[in-house]
This record gives sequence, structure tokens and C-alpha cells, in this order.
Amino acid sequence: MSILEQIEKTGDIKNVAPQDYEALAAEIRRFLITKVSRTGGHLASNLGTVELTMALHTVFDPPHDKLIFDVGHQSYTHKLLTGRKDGFDTLRTYGGMSGFPKSAESDCDVFDTGHSSTSISAGLGLAQARALSGEDYAVVCVIGDGSMTGGLAFEALNNAGQVKGNFIIVINDNDKSIGDNVGGMSSTFQNLRTAPRYNRMKQKVKRSLDKIPTVGGVMVRHIGRAKEAVKQILLPNMYFESMGLTYLGPIDGHDMKALIHTLRNARRLDRPVVVHVVTQKGKGYSFAEQDPERFHGIGPFDVQTGRCLEPKKRTYTDEIADGMLRLGAASHKVCAITAAMAYGTGLIPFQKAFPDRFFDVGIAEQHAVAFAAGLAKGGYKPYVCIYSTFLQRAYDQIVHDAALQKLPVTFLIDRAGLVGSDGPTHHGMQDAGFLQTVPGLTLLAPRDGTELQAMLDYSLTFDGPLAIRYPRGEVPEAAAEEERAPLAYGKAEILQQGSSVAILAAGHLVENARKALPLLEQAGIHATLVNARFLKPFDTELLRRLSADHELIAVLEENNRSGGLGEHVADFCEQELLPCRVLDLSPDDAFYPQGDMAHLYRDLGWLPEQICERILRQRERGNA
Amino acid sequence: MSILEQIEKTGDIKNVAPQDYEALAAEIRRFLITKVSRTGGHLASNLGTVELTMALHTVFDPPHDKLIFDVGHQSYTHKLLTGRKDGFDTLRTYGGMSGFPKSAESDCDVFDTGHSSTSISAGLGLAQARALSGEDYAVVCVIGDGSMTGGLAFEALNNAGQVKGNFIIVINDNDKSIGDNVGGMSSTFQNLRTAPRYNRMKQKVKRSLDKIPTVGGVMVRHIGRAKEAVKQILLPNMYFESMGLTYLGPIDGHDMKALIHTLRNARRLDRPVVVHVVTQKGKGYSFAEQDPERFHGIGPFDVQTGRCLEPKKRTYTDEIADGMLRLGAASHKVCAITAAMAYGTGLIPFQKAFPDRFFDVGIAEQHAVAFAAGLAKGGYKPYVCIYSTFLQRAYDQIVHDAALQKLPVTFLIDRAGLVGSDGPTHHGMQDAGFLQTVPGLTLLAPRDGTELQAMLDYSLTFDGPLAIRYPRGEVPEAAAEEERAPLAYGKAEILQQGSSVAILAAGHLVENARKALPLLEQAGIHATLVNARFLKPFDTELLRRLSADHELIAVLEENNRSGGLGEHVADFCEQELLPCRVLDLSPDDAFYPQGDMAHLYRDLGWLPEQICERILRQRERGNA
Repeated sequence: MSILEQIEKTGDIKNVAPQDYEALAAEIRRFLITKVSRTGGHLASNLGTVELTMALHTVFDPPHDKLIFDVGHQSYTHKLLTGRKDGFDTLRTYGGMSGFPKSAESDCDVFDTGHSSTSISAGLGLAQARALSGEDYAVVCVIGDGSMTGGLAFEALNNAGQVKGNFIIVINDNDKSIGDNVGGMSSTFQNLRTAPRYNRMKQKVKRSLDKIPTVGGVMVRHIGRAKEAVKQILLPNMYFESMGLTYLGPIDGHDMKALIHTLRNARRLDRPVVVHVVTQKGKGYSFAEQDPERFHGIGPFDVQTGRCLEPKKRTYTDEIADGMLRLGAASHKVCAITAAMAYGTGLIPFQKAFPDRFFDVGIAEQHAVAFAAGLAKGGYKPYVCIYSTFLQRAYDQIVHDAALQKLPVTFLIDRAGLVGSDGPTHHGMQDAGFLQTVPGLTLLAPRDGTELQAMLDYSLTFDGPLAIRYPRGEVPEAAAEEERAPLAYGKAEILQQGSSVAILAAGHLVENARKALPLLEQAGIHATLVNARFLKPFDTELLRRLSADHELIAVLEENNRSGGLGEHVADFCEQELLPCRVLDLSPDDAFYPQGDMAHLYRDLGWLPEQICERILRQRERGNA
Repeated sequence: MSILEQIEKTGDIKNVAPQDYEALAAEIRRFLITKVSRTGGHLASNLGTVELTMALHTVFDPPHDKLIFDVGHQSYTHKLLTGRKDGFDTLRTYGGMSGFPKSAESDCDVFDTGHSSTSISAGLGLAQARALSGEDYAVVCVIGDGSMTGGLAFEALNNAGQVKGNFIIVINDNDKSIGDNVGGMSSTFQNLRTAPRYNRMKQKVKRSLDKIPTVGGVMVRHIGRAKEAVKQILLPNMYFESMGLTYLGPIDGHDMKALIHTLRNARRLDRPVVVHVVTQKGKGYSFAEQDPERFHGIGPFDVQTGRCLEPKKRTYTDEIADGMLRLGAASHKVCAITAAMAYGTGLIPFQKAFPDRFFDVGIAEQHAVAFAAGLAKGGYKPYVCIYSTFLQRAYDQIVHDAALQKLPVTFLIDRAGLVGSDGPTHHGMQDAGFLQTVPGLTLLAPRDGTELQAMLDYSLTFDGPLAIRYPRGEVPEAAAEEERAPLAYGKAEILQQGSSVAILAAGHLVENARKALPLLEQAGIHATLVNARFLKPFDTELLRRLSADHELIAVLEENNRSGGLGEHVADFCEQELLPCRVLDLSPDDAFYPQGDMAHLYRDLGWLPEQICERILRQRERGNA
């Protein structure tokens, strides 16, 4: 019987003998590699935190003690140690186990995460609640050094010194956020990492201090040299201690004995403490060690070769990769900005071609946008490439720094709409709503890769804030070369002229609407199909025309109802007293589960046959 | 002729003789006090930065050199020195000079500000643009130590080390954001301030170092004591230098000679540099020195006595002050959280009564919300009190940390709607839009102070995320005691039952709608008046009933059109195929200028006679 087999439920790890830790860690890694190779999922981050999570569960008692995993994509070992071994067969599938902590899934998942840099804030909330209620549970936040570049983490850290009682922040330092880390905070950690072990470094500093000339003033004149050495040992101390936090570390994050020892010490302190742990992303699987970025979030792969099993199809992100390269060559004013997502947003080719005009600002979406506004003020043409769900962090900067000054910042919003297996924390079902509220912003959605390229070209000479939203995943198969009307401000594109019913579809869902057309024909309706192209401002002139010979306009957009295109069209038709009726095919506001797109589309009523059926039903109701 | 009279345009200060600086500073202070005493405005922050701004204009050459004022409420002396002396007669009035930097007003206002902590990001954008274009202008960001508690500033600082060429961050350290500063960053600055001057502190450290015992190991054992002293001198150095920034300071911010000397040195460095300046808020006006919080933003006042000229009327904020005190007493679970706005949001009484349950987290809206989510997880009942426009910063945390987990966090949203003289950066005309996009959030708006109290009571037992939006300014005069239907989930309140036309009004605008009723009567319409109460979910059952005997439902809400109540009602009526028409009285999305509410309401068509006229016109169009 393997050691892992003996771990059935929360707390079982406490019965594992210390001499078996190494074997258990190896078994866990094997388990994770095997499972993730089948389902896909986050791998590199989980392989890096096996021992750390084992140590946490050895020292602490969840669910009494509260463990919070920042971002949460490193919580697989935690799931394994809290009775969810079987869940890995359905990891990230529809109805299956989440790839992130979910309090609905286990009481050991204290606080749901998914976005970066939230854990210290949440942990402080719990710690203050504990102080008020007089309880005694431990609160432990596990946060990566990449997540520490997010302003939210700094805001929390700045408040952490005030907490009463024990409060532990474990900084999981792997020198990666998802890609490489950037910024000053990163080089602080870098200084530490270069010393193989804390103690060896300490020795070095001792020796440096011993060498300081000791004749009063002379010593001071030489302080520069000593300072460098002192800095090595004192800086993290000082940085965190100036904020009122005790600093312990750095600890080898793959050394169970050191981890357990340090975490026990940390638990004994009656105050906030930072435990700095150095880990290796992808540890124990050579392919992931060598290419942690590719193995950050990965589809099914062959364990022996590390190769992906599913053939790579062309995605919207690939279109951005090509398009941004073209724009960068077309104008030396074009800059690209990413918040630690160069790989995910397709900017690697741009970065390689135009390194001076490429800016990775870290997990810092707010800064990304305000910085872009500054670049635009300075006469440049910035493109901010951020996933829909993470752009929520920069809503204020879009309004206050870009739109209010009418600056020509372009937002390339990847993963707009449903994202599939990452689930509710990652679906981009609100951006079309919150971006519509931004005065003066122009918002576009392409129906395929060809149109995304056209929109990129259009953006190049557009003078004002502009956003283009496009979904995760594949672009539709290239149809036979068709004539396309060039993009014109605020104008939609008619794909089929019919009568009685018009479908106004936006973005990728144009494809589903198109597939609904023959079904409608079978029901005797030769419908009009319009590709919205512009969501803000939308084509009001066309709506007026359509209302003359269409009784129903169905609006289809991959977004929640609130603030979406359907509401805007309905409101417009009411104001203009147009005779047509508006059917809003967007779902009521909700958070959607993880799952494959077919399941999710079905749940939302967006499959072609559902679109057809919903239109027919509404038409019947109208005629009744 | 006074010295100030000789300053007509940008650059004139360069002709002022150094021996006249002190007199000029005194004249500027007198000018500002006199002018602001008439118009109202920001005073304490401007009195604190007179010499700093004079020094900046002496050393640098705007508009060639770029000066960015963080928040911008300290830019009055800058306006004075850039040819806008006359503007102070119309300061913050409709059509007059803005109280914040506005690039439309002067090319010396490089980047529009209003919200906190944006200046370093914007400055970095300009500096990178400069590096790309090969220009040579200086970029100087002036940022308060309070603004440094905002995560955005940290994100920017973390990126500042990478900038090529000269880049100056002036930290204006007055130990205040608007109220007292909080957090670890603050105590770092505190350590510096306690030393009267950098040099004196340096001497102290030298002496401490001299005293370190010098026998190898012994010295190390005593390092703790030395560390404290070393920290005093090295910490700011190290903190900023670890981020790749040179540190100069602290400098007396009222010593022109020291300021000019240091800024000139800073300008010579070919790299990013922090200049740490210590100033006194309210400097030179005893009332403002003693009570800088009251003189932060103030209405017209008597210069001799410091007393406000306008009688203080009861505001929505006063209602919150009383209400939160009541809730705090009613339940020991109630906590209150502010982002450096205890005074502005009315939380001072709560803070005094329940200090353990009061949390001022600094200018850190993101953390405020995520922290509140943690408190809620820990079994407490947090109330997050933030102005509408600043809550934009926490959109992601509202979605991802509060709503996704259905946590009972209550948002008290002050300054929702138009705010008057602070202008476009501060109007709260989007929150009803962006909050509608949050799945599972309940959104309320009270029509007066009495209803706000009822909503606070309602919130106490409400189990889920809840937001209450209310405007800046006075509550309506208490009417004769009327019977009110108790609040019920998702239910509106009928204030007058009529027919043909219904007005569905939200919040404070119910008052304007009520005043429109007699005007409508004159036109032969006995209209129905409904107080929405619930914006999300709104009262769909009532809408169905109204549609039976009302041809027109006019929706009135103090918010932009996008995502607002009007769009939701229009969309609902379309889906339900209701026979009535919906008139959305909200304005098209826009940024609105500063000004008194009467002017602004008139511009937006919200005066009672305009409401009446717009309804009549739409009714005519419908009948035509």
C-alpha cells in the first residue's frame, strides 16, 4: 500500500512518519502529473508546492485553522490532503471538481480565490474577526511572489501590522508569476534567492561586517561596501518589519524538516509574521521545470514526452500575436502592455520584435491602464492586453485615466465571455456590461479572426479609447473568401437580408446565429442576420431601418444581461417608439460553473436550435 | 506692487529674487485663504505645498517639463504660477476654473487627476514615451504620503526602477492622507519625520555605529541595537533603492533653498529618484493647521474666525453617522470600514463608539472590500463606506470576493450621482450601472433620510451582498409624518396612484418627480408616482400591473443611461411584451462638468418642469 493510499481524509497526513515524507511527495507528484495529463489543468504551480502544502497540513488543523491559497491554482495538493482524491478524475469538467478552492466543495477551502493578490486581505478579515470573537484558529495565507506585485497585496500588507495575534503570510517565492516576474519587489527577492541558504548568507554577512575597518570615521566612509552586505540580510527583515511584520526565511520550500520547523515557530508568535519560502515551479517533472510557463495551465498531454495531445488550433490569441506584430511594424508608435500575461495574451512575438515598446508591468492591471494613459499622453499608441475577468481590476483607470481624457488607449480583451474549465472566477461575462458604462469608450467585438485583424487595423488610426473583446479559444473555420464591408464607425454588417425576424449578434456568437438561420427557414422564417461589430456606439440607424419590416429583433451577445447590448437596444427602441419588439437572448446575471463550452452554451440557451426555438416562442407569444 | 502681482504667466517666478521667496509664499497663502474663503475649495493641502510648488516652477520649465500632481487638490499654487490668477474668482463654479488639474485649461496641466495614486503610473508612461521619442523633458510626479498607501502607487513604484533617464517622484509627506494615515508605510515615514533633519539623523547613526563593539562575534551579537539605528538611515534608502530608485531626503518642504537645491540635484541624475519632502498641511493659517481635516475641502468661511458661512444642513452623510451608530449598538457583529474617509463618510461617531470594529485601511478601496469579505467569512457584518467614484477601484473585489461568495458585505455608497463643484473626476454617475452588472448583488436607493435609516435597518438582517447608493448633500425637508410601507425585498413603493403615465423614480430624484406631479396635473395627467427603492432586483410584478393601465412609464434615476434602471425596465418590458412604453429620463453616457446642482440638473433635464415636459413630449410622439 502506497503512502498516498493511506491519506483518505483531512488530517491523515499527521500520521505519516517523517522518513516517509519524501516518498509521499514523490507519490503526490506522480499522481498530479498523471491526473492532469488526462484532464488538463494547472501543473507547474502545483508541483512546486507539494512539500509546502504537506508541511502546512502537518503543522495546522484545517478546517479549524484557515488556509487561504492566493489565486488558488496551487491548491491541488491541498485538495488531495483533504479527502478529494477522487475529484481529480473530474477536475475542471462540467459538474466536476474545481481547479480552484471552493468553499462549496470543502470546509477546508476557507476563501474562494481565482484572481491574484486577494489572500492577505481576506486573511486579515478573518484574523480581525477572530480577534473580535475571541477564537483561536490560525490564519495562513499562501501567496506567490508574483501575486505580491499586485497593488491589492501591498494595500493588505500595509494593514497587516495592525492585526492582533498570530497571522502568517507564506510567500511562495518561485521567481515566476505566470511568466517571469518584473519590478523592484522581484529584485528584492532575487537578492535573497542568489544566496543558496539563509544561514550561508548570514555567515557571509557576518564576515563582511567583521571586515569593516573600525576606526570611527573610516568605518563610516566605508559603509557603502558594508551596506551591500547588510542589505542582503537586513532588507527583507526591514521591509516587512517596517510594516510591523516579523520575517522568517528564506526557507527551502522542498525541505519538509525546515518547513515544518519554521511554520511551527511562526505559529508560536503572537503577531503577524512573513515566512519566505523558495520553491521551484514544475519541480519533479523535467518538462515542467524547463518550461513552467507552458505547464502553468495546460491541456491533456503525454507524460513521457510532455507534448500536448490535442492538436493546436488557431485561436483568437494567435490572431492577436500576428496582428500586434503587424501593427508594431506599421507604426513605431505602437506599444504593447501586459500584466504578467505575455504568453496568455499572445504578446511574445511582439515582445521579441519590439522589446523597447513592450511592457510587462507585473500582476498590476490598474497600473497597466494608468501607465498606458501616460504613454498616450506622451504621443504613443498603447495596446493594453488583459483578460476580461482581470480587466475588472482596472475599471476605475479605464474611466478616470483613459476615457475622461479621451486618450487613444486600445484595450484588447481576451477571454471575453465563457472560458470553460477555469469556471466562475474566470468567466468574462461582465466586461460588455461594465465597459458600456464608460462614457466615450468605443467597444467592438469581431465575429472571427479575419474581422479581429480588420479591427486591429481600424484601431491604429482611431483617436480615442477603444476596446475589442474576443473570446477564449478557436476562431471559426475560415469560410470561402467573402466580400466584407470595411469597418465604419458605429456601423453593423448585414450578413443576410431577410424580413420579419432579425438577429443582431455580436462577436463569436454570430457563428451560432448563422447556424440558427436554416432552422428558422424550416419554420418559414427568412431571417435577417446582422453582425453588430460595434457594441458602443451600436448602429441605431440600422435598427430604425430594421424596425420597419421586422417585428422582432433578437439580440445575441456573450455577456450577462445587465448593461449588455440587448438592454441598450431595448432601451433605444423604447425611446424611439419603434414598432418592433426586442428579444434579449442574454442570460439573467449569474455566475456560471466550469465546464466545456457545449454544456455551458446549452445551459445559457445559445445553441443554434435553442436560438431558433427561443425566437419562435417569443414570436408566438407576441402573436397570441 | 506686491511680488505676486508681478507673476502674470508661466515662468515669471524665475525672475523673483531668492530674498523675496518668503514674502511671495506669504502673499500666495493670503491669496489662497481669501479666495477659498469665498468660493470654498481645498485649502489645507494647498497651504502645505506653496513653497514646494514655487520651487518646482523655479527649477523646472513647464509646459516643456511635465509636472503631474497626484489627486490634484494641491494644484492651486501651480495654477497661480501658470497664469490663472483670475480663475480663482470662479473656482469650482459652473463654467469656472476647476479645482483639479485639467489639460483643457492649461498646457501646464499635463495629466488630469482627481483620484488618488495615479501620478507615478502616468509619469512613467510619459517617461517611457520620452525615452522612445528621444526627447529630453523632465517628468516630475508630486504625490502625498497618503496616496502612497494606494496599491496603484505601489504597482507603479515597482515598475519605476526600469525607467531610462531622469524621473522624479516628489513624496509630499504631511502625515495625512485626508485624515490620519494608516499602515506600515506610514510608520516608515513616521520614523523619518521624528528626526528633525536628515543630517542630524545621519550624525546619530554615525555615533551609533561608532559604538558597536568591534570584537568579531560580539559585534554581531549586538547587531540588534545597531540595526535600529541603521534602519533609521538606511530604510528609506533601501526600500526605494531595492526598487531601483535613488532616495533624497527628507527635506523641509517649507525651506525654499533646500527644496531648490535638492530638486536641482535630482534633475541632474540620469535615473529615477525619490525626493522626500516634509510639509505641514494647512501651513500658515492657524485654523487649518489645527484642523486640516475640516479644511481639506471646505465651503465658504470667515477668514477671521475660521467658521463656515453657510449654515450646516442635515445631509445623507449625517444620516449614515447616526444610522451606523445605531447599527453598531444593535449588533456587536457590525463593523465599519473606510478608505481614508472616516470624516467624509460620516464614520467618526462609529469610530469613537466602537473603535475595535472600525477599520480605516488607508486609500485602499480594493483592500477595503476584500478585507470586508474576510470579515464576513469570519462571521461579522461589515459595512464598507466609500464614495461612488472611488468605489470604481473595487469593482473586481465586489464581483470576485464579495458577490461570488454571496457574502453579507454592505456597501454604503456616498456621493452617488452628481457631486457639484468637484466636477467630472468625482461625479458618481456610473455606480448604478457597474453595480447592476454584479450577479447576486442587491442595490437600493433611498428617497430621503428616513428611508435611508430604514434601509440600514433592513441591511442588518440581510444575508448577502447589498449596496445602498445615496447622493452628496442635504436630505429633503422632513415632510409631515407619513405612513410608509415597510421595506420588502424587491418591492417598490407607490407614492401616488394615478393612470396613463407612471413615473418610476429612484433615490433623491423622487423629490423632483414629486414636484413634477402638479405640473402634469395641469396638463390633465394624474400620474402614478413610484419610488423604486430596489434597483436590483427591481419590482417586476408592479411593472406588469402598471402596464395594464399606463401607456407610459418614465424612469428617473441619478445615473448615466448605460446599465441604469431605465435600460433594465425597457429590457424587461420588451421581454414580457408589455403594452406600455418606457421613457428613460437618464442622460446619454457622458462626463459632466463641475457646477452647482441647479445648473447640472437643468443640463440633464431633471428639473421638475423638464421632467413634465419630456413626459408630455414623448406622449405626444407616441400618439402621433
